[in-house]
Amino acid sequence: MPIISNVTVQDVRFPTSLELDGSDAVNVDPDYSAAYVMVTADNGEVGHGFVFSCGRGNEVIVSAIESYGELLVGRELDDLVADLGAASRLLVHDSQMRWLGPEKGVSHMAAGAVINALWDIAARREGKPLWRYLAELSPEEIVRAIDFTHISDALSPQEALEILQAGQRGKEERLRELEQDGFPAYTTSPGWLGYSDEKMVRLSKEAVDNGFDLIKLKVGGEVESDRRRMRIVREAVGEDIKVAIDANQRWDVPDAIEWLQQLSEFNPWWIEEATSTDDVLGHATIRKAISPMKVATGEAVHNRIIVKQLLQAQAIDVLQIDSTRVAGVNENLANLLLAKKFDIPVCPHAGGVGLCELVQHFSFFDYAAVSGSFENRYIEYVDHLHEHFAEPVVIRNARYQAPKKPGIGAEMHANSRAQWTFPEGEGWQEVGGRAAVSGAEHKHH
Amino acid sequence: MPIISNVTVQDVRFPTSLELDGSDAVNVDPDYSAAYVMVTADNGEVGHGFVFSCGRGNEVIVSAIESYGELLVGRELDDLVADLGAASRLLVHDSQMRWLGPEKGVSHMAAGAVINALWDIAARREGKPLWRYLAELSPEEIVRAIDFTHISDALSPQEALEILQAGQRGKEERLRELEQDGFPAYTTSPGWLGYSDEKMVRLSKEAVDNGFDLIKLKVGGEVESDRRRMRIVREAVGEDIKVAIDANQRWDVPDAIEWLQQLSEFNPWWIEEATSTDDVLGHATIRKAISPMKVATGEAVHNRIIVKQLLQAQAIDVLQIDSTRVAGVNENLANLLLAKKFDIPVCPHAGGVGLCELVQHFSFFDYAAVSGSFENRYIEYVDHLHEHFAEPVVIRNARYQAPKKPGIGAEMHANSRAQWTFPEGEGWQEVGGRAAVSGAEHKHH
Repeated sequence: MPIISNVTVQDVRFPTSLELDGSDAVNVDPDYSAAYVMVTADNGEVGHGFVFSCGRGNEVIVSAIESYGELLVGRELDDLVADLGAASRLLVHDSQMRWLGPEKGVSHMAAGAVINALWDIAARREGKPLWRYLAELSPEEIVRAIDFTHISDALSPQEALEILQAGQRGKEERLRELEQDGFPAYTTSPGWLGYSDEKMVRLSKEAVDNGFDLIKLKVGGEVESDRRRMRIVREAVGEDIKVAIDANQRWDVPDAIEWLQQLSEFNPWWIEEATSTDDVLGHATIRKAISPMKVATGEAVHNRIIVKQLLQAQAIDVLQIDSTRVAGVNENLANLLLAKKFDIPVCPHAGGVGLCELVQHFSFFDYAAVSGSFENRYIEYVDHLHEHFAEPVVIRNARYQAPKKPGIGAEMHANSRAQWTFPEGEGWQEVGGRAAVSGAEHKHH
Repeated sequence: MPIISNVTVQDVRFPTSLELDGSDAVNVDPDYSAAYVMVTADNGEVGHGFVFSCGRGNEVIVSAIESYGELLVGRELDDLVADLGAASRLLVHDSQMRWLGPEKGVSHMAAGAVINALWDIAARREGKPLWRYLAELSPEEIVRAIDFTHISDALSPQEALEILQAGQRGKEERLRELEQDGFPAYTTSPGWLGYSDEKMVRLSKEAVDNGFDLIKLKVGGEVESDRRRMRIVREAVGEDIKVAIDANQRWDVPDAIEWLQQLSEFNPWWIEEATSTDDVLGHATIRKAISPMKVATGEAVHNRIIVKQLLQAQAIDVLQIDSTRVAGVNENLANLLLAKKFDIPVCPHAGGVGLCELVQHFSFFDYAAVSGSFENRYIEYVDHLHEHFAEPVVIRNARYQAPKKPGIGAEMHANSRAQWTFPEGEGWQEVGGRAAVSGAEHKHH
């Protein structure tokens, strides 16, 4: 019986702040980073996982992953893999660690990375990419993986089971369809706040030429500037292309309503993170005020309990799950089923580093076995840093192509990790720690 | 001009799990701990702060405090102390660190400890305990310390100013009253879930003999056991003593309602943490169902944005602020003013280690300059681990007596910290790491 022999963590950071890729109204200078974990058993099996972050503070997530890792070392791998629901609860509900959240922030993300590494092993053992591994589990097995604590008033295990049983009908056909045509993508690459108008227009047109029918712009700097940017993008792409906007939690509720009223003439497809993602009631108020503009959020929603309330309060039109914010695959299964229960489409958040590679699996599984629909459903796509992964995402005809490699998609090349280990990796030596210095300078503004 | 020369952090833990002090339905074996920080300037000034935790994972908070500390080293102390609102925003809204929360969990608590250490220096400079230092600031200075981001729809700076201006009337009289008679306390010491019925009854009677008119029992183990415990305590203390109950987030919404209906005959004064403190809507549903029983929560509420919603949704009758969960003094000022705006009494959470010493300052300030009322207002009191602090709380006639020493009350004796530094302190050597081992064994159940 294989035993977990060690859990190793690396602090990997990319100096993206040098180019202002990924800049928005709140994240002005991110260095896209991964607190990267490998769970290794004494028979040589390895599972990969990570938490995405924006640079400074990645070392704190590393510390948290190490602490959760200690709870696993010495355990029998087969037991963990045989009941990934129990494995998740073991970490998430650890009686002492729970105080660190509960179920939120650094500790929750760290637990999620370790849990995901166990799912990675489970999927590798079956020789399947995660999405197919999940789609081929029985409804009962999926239900067993989910922690219904504090969501059972909105979604009981029985209701989840019924949703999944209904999802079995036509599944084989949908699996073939996914293998052949993939899943719709939208792109955020044109619209970073740090880009010039010219670059934004050029990239928007390129995106449309490449077949995208939904693109996204960052907003929330200055209202006049947002109006100008929306106008020139509208002029460049026409009325038939959907243009979503994203404020990255920049506004208070009254500001959001006022600002969005000034942008409504450009017909934004959705407004993303109009205010704090903790603010369920605020999102509901905004949604009512700006209808029929759609309201989207989720990338910073810290657990299924907030997702539940966003749905109960009719606060959102689009749920944007994130692959490394919550407690791993298990909690995103809960989120997908909650969304289905409330008939809200899931359009995952991606970008950063590795988020596209991970999160695509959830949409593929969602289509195969839960929602069965592409309607108003897209996976976010951003075109950088994919080259560092064992299986970079493939976009063809503006659609994610089905991942094929066994596992959850988290594996980053060993040499990429070594090169960009912070601060001692060669890559950081070569840029002379410039991005890190820029970070340090930021504090003087 | 003094410059911050270093920020040092200690991992201090007490082996409380050996005695089951502090045991409840969720926290079954806490080792009360402090991630303890000292912010030191090159002129020798030192500010103290800490985050309370339950043992395992304290090292993660230590790591987070170190990271926030790096943002302070080299800065001019006078600038920070002169504008503690700006100092708070510098840490809480750091553009890269923000991703770790935002404003929740490990990172938020860690930022709070560092911010509190700066308030400690500010109060020491004036030679005043925090509560009096705050009470003697002008309304404008208090407003300047508060971050209204994402709460301005419920409390604008102007409304806050008006509340504080109204609080100036009669303040001097109330300050004298506080100095003389202190602030009402309630006690949780009788009711830990790990205690025998006999011990619980004996401690309940002692509490009443000592003048307490509100005591609290932990519930949420088994409903029959809870009914028995409430019955025998009611019999022991009579009908005139208020008995609050605390489920520590043990229930889902439907369970909470059913369980509380079975306890209502014993007339509980409030039900605390009936469900997840993330669940604003769930608390509102429970409150409606069990009225007129009061609903209380707050010790695990991670920021002012959730507090705002609990109030907006009419989900609570009692707000239980915690001194080390949110981003320091600043955010608790926001919480006090939000509670006043919605006319909800604040009954702070305390216990653990050092939480009584810290949180009392907020109630004293609240009475002096915000609410001006003792009605339905109590500070929680638990009678252990006070001897480790430079100024242990003093309870007389079941009331907290006004703290006198300059600062925020966080300072723990250096020898206590050394003795209980985990794992190398002498104290831990003497108990043979037993509590830690008990923690490690927990994972096999």
